[in-house]
Amino acid sequence: MTTKKAGGLADVIAGQTAISTVGKEGKGLTYRGFTIEDLAEHGSFEETAYLLLRGNLPNDAELQLYKKKLISLRHLPAGLTVILEQLPPKTHPMDVLRTGISALGAYEPEDGEYGPLSIADRLMACSASILLYWHHYHTSGIRIDTATSNSSIAGHFLQLLHGSEPIELYEKALDASLVLYAEHEFNASTFAARVTASTLSDFYSAVTTGIGTLRGSLHGGANEAAMSLIEQFTCPDEAEAGILNKLGNKQLIMGFGHRVYSNRDPRSDIIKNWSRKINEEAGDMALFDISERIEGVMQREKGLFANLDFYSASAYRRLGIPTAFFTPIFVISRISGWSSHIIEQRASNRIIRPNADYIGPDRRSWLPIDQRP
Amino acid sequence: MTTKKAGGLADVIAGQTAISTVGKEGKGLTYRGFTIEDLAEHGSFEETAYLLLRGNLPNDAELQLYKKKLISLRHLPAGLTVILEQLPPKTHPMDVLRTGISALGAYEPEDGEYGPLSIADRLMACSASILLYWHHYHTSGIRIDTATSNSSIAGHFLQLLHGSEPIELYEKALDASLVLYAEHEFNASTFAARVTASTLSDFYSAVTTGIGTLRGSLHGGANEAAMSLIEQFTCPDEAEAGILNKLGNKQLIMGFGHRVYSNRDPRSDIIKNWSRKINEEAGDMALFDISERIEGVMQREKGLFANLDFYSASAYRRLGIPTAFFTPIFVISRISGWSSHIIEQRASNRIIRPNADYIGPDRRSWLPIDQRP
Repeated sequence: MTTKKAGGLADVIAGQTAISTVGKEGKGLTYRGFTIEDLAEHGSFEETAYLLLRGNLPNDAELQLYKKKLISLRHLPAGLTVILEQLPPKTHPMDVLRTGISALGAYEPEDGEYGPLSIADRLMACSASILLYWHHYHTSGIRIDTATSNSSIAGHFLQLLHGSEPIELYEKALDASLVLYAEHEFNASTFAARVTASTLSDFYSAVTTGIGTLRGSLHGGANEAAMSLIEQFTCPDEAEAGILNKLGNKQLIMGFGHRVYSNRDPRSDIIKNWSRKINEEAGDMALFDISERIEGVMQREKGLFANLDFYSASAYRRLGIPTAFFTPIFVISRISGWSSHIIEQRASNRIIRPNADYIGPDRRSWLPIDQRP
Repeated sequence: MTTKKAGGLADVIAGQTAISTVGKEGKGLTYRGFTIEDLAEHGSFEETAYLLLRGNLPNDAELQLYKKKLISLRHLPAGLTVILEQLPPKTHPMDVLRTGISALGAYEPEDGEYGPLSIADRLMACSASILLYWHHYHTSGIRIDTATSNSSIAGHFLQLLHGSEPIELYEKALDASLVLYAEHEFNASTFAARVTASTLSDFYSAVTTGIGTLRGSLHGGANEAAMSLIEQFTCPDEAEAGILNKLGNKQLIMGFGHRVYSNRDPRSDIIKNWSRKINEEAGDMALFDISERIEGVMQREKGLFANLDFYSASAYRRLGIPTAFFTPIFVISRISGWSSHIIEQRASNRIIRPNADYIGPDRRSWLPIDQRP
């Protein structure tokens, strides 16, 4: 079988989806039929989440209602804040989200009162609250009020992080990034969440699976790795020399190429434009220029294109976001995609249970313990 | 493609394993080459876990050392007990384990100090502590000492649950059950844990995925469903009439048949013998006789055999285990299998990322919000 040789289920069709297309003709990305370019330019993250979860774009009245609902879901149960206070300051932020969302399932379990869509909305609305309550408690001892009145999830995040309302350009940049990260077909975290959902487990379990899977350096962790790379250099020339050196040593450079896209990542141009715009606005192009030089070297030397993770790094840094929160932002956004897939998996479910090719020992005879070597 | 038609990756080989064989000739089960019959009759759960994780059976000195080590890992970090106290009394016990083990990853993260094998051992040793600390705190207000000196994980569980040393026969029955539940190739929870591991995420994330996936009623939840079924009847004749009635109404009867075994589940005879033995010892065969009648009806009417979950129910009930703890016991045991697969996945890794068959809308043109219906 091809699956056995290729490994990682590459090129195996694991099921059907009506949510997104990735890499059609090597480069396209659509959510529910709309191109990522249209969504990122004209739409907001809230519009995108509504589209993913409910199948169609909201009209103005529906969107206003939806945004109001999301604003109302930013508070945390008192018990959950106690739990977050117990997670040590050195905890990996993804472990904070994984634990916090798992615990929220104990307070608001999926049942008659909380259905799939309302849990999806709740998790998008309060994930920033979970992360940043924990963050401020452990860095400054302050128990922040997580219920801000900012109208967007992007603004809510920046306001909780910095303690003041973000400027509009920054809020828009983060909002566009959330649109770009929202959904990506059967990527590893989404597929894992579908496997969890396929046993008819609850919604929180499937999302917790998504978070744990996204945490890996080959998946969500890539934007943090890209930042670490870029930060090593102080100017474009130094970056060029450094990258050539790494390539010579056969080191892996994170933020380039993609399993599914063969020509380019359509999201990369969009986030690159945002990164340029906000770095220009701040009057400091150093990080952007270094990034652009690295992109050029990777294209010239390896024929590899930048993926979404690469320019997200220089954009997030300009927004004052600590590197360790890059993947958690990915979570806040991707909850919309995971949730859509969990609902889709349930609607036409069969438990996902593949087979394995056995390469272990043949049948062995039992040896009483006193006769073992 | 066949995968597309069958769904659920049935008959797709998703990778290689040297850990177990399931359903060879329709009925066999081996761990690292040893038959489940040998392991359950001659071995203990600790021996089995050692075999799964380390590839070979321990000799006497190794086993004694290993059991000592496991005994030393039953305590809980103080912060974790505070967290467990915050999870409401009505929390699903699987949510307690999912959250508790996720939180433990914050206290003892995978790094230089805690490696894969030591985390696997820790989780097997302290999962009963997590569950039963939470249980006693919320049912009687008592903060139990989770560090018992009982020599086995089965005994530790029963001692924490009942507050007194278990009789040897009961401890052995639970120990055998842990052996039977330890490992089962690419079942849904193990496969999901491997997907999480394949992004190079941490050990706790992969185990948390396993727990969340096992929680579903089509997977680990099946033994609880079998108990609910059996408990509906007061005698074998009533059970026979009730099952015939359910079959007439096309209701699903849990605890019968299996995706991988075509002839019989080799674990069923073993747990059935244990159930008979401990129910005889207690001088009350009611639940066992009802179970046996249901088994006979299902064989006669549907040609279906009992699987491991079915007789686990009447055995666990005799041991005084609440139904809601049946799947958590499955977790304690299966951590050995999940952990072996996580380690195996990492040793020869490729990210698990299948493709999807798109069945959604064609490309749609953007419609400004004020023009939407």
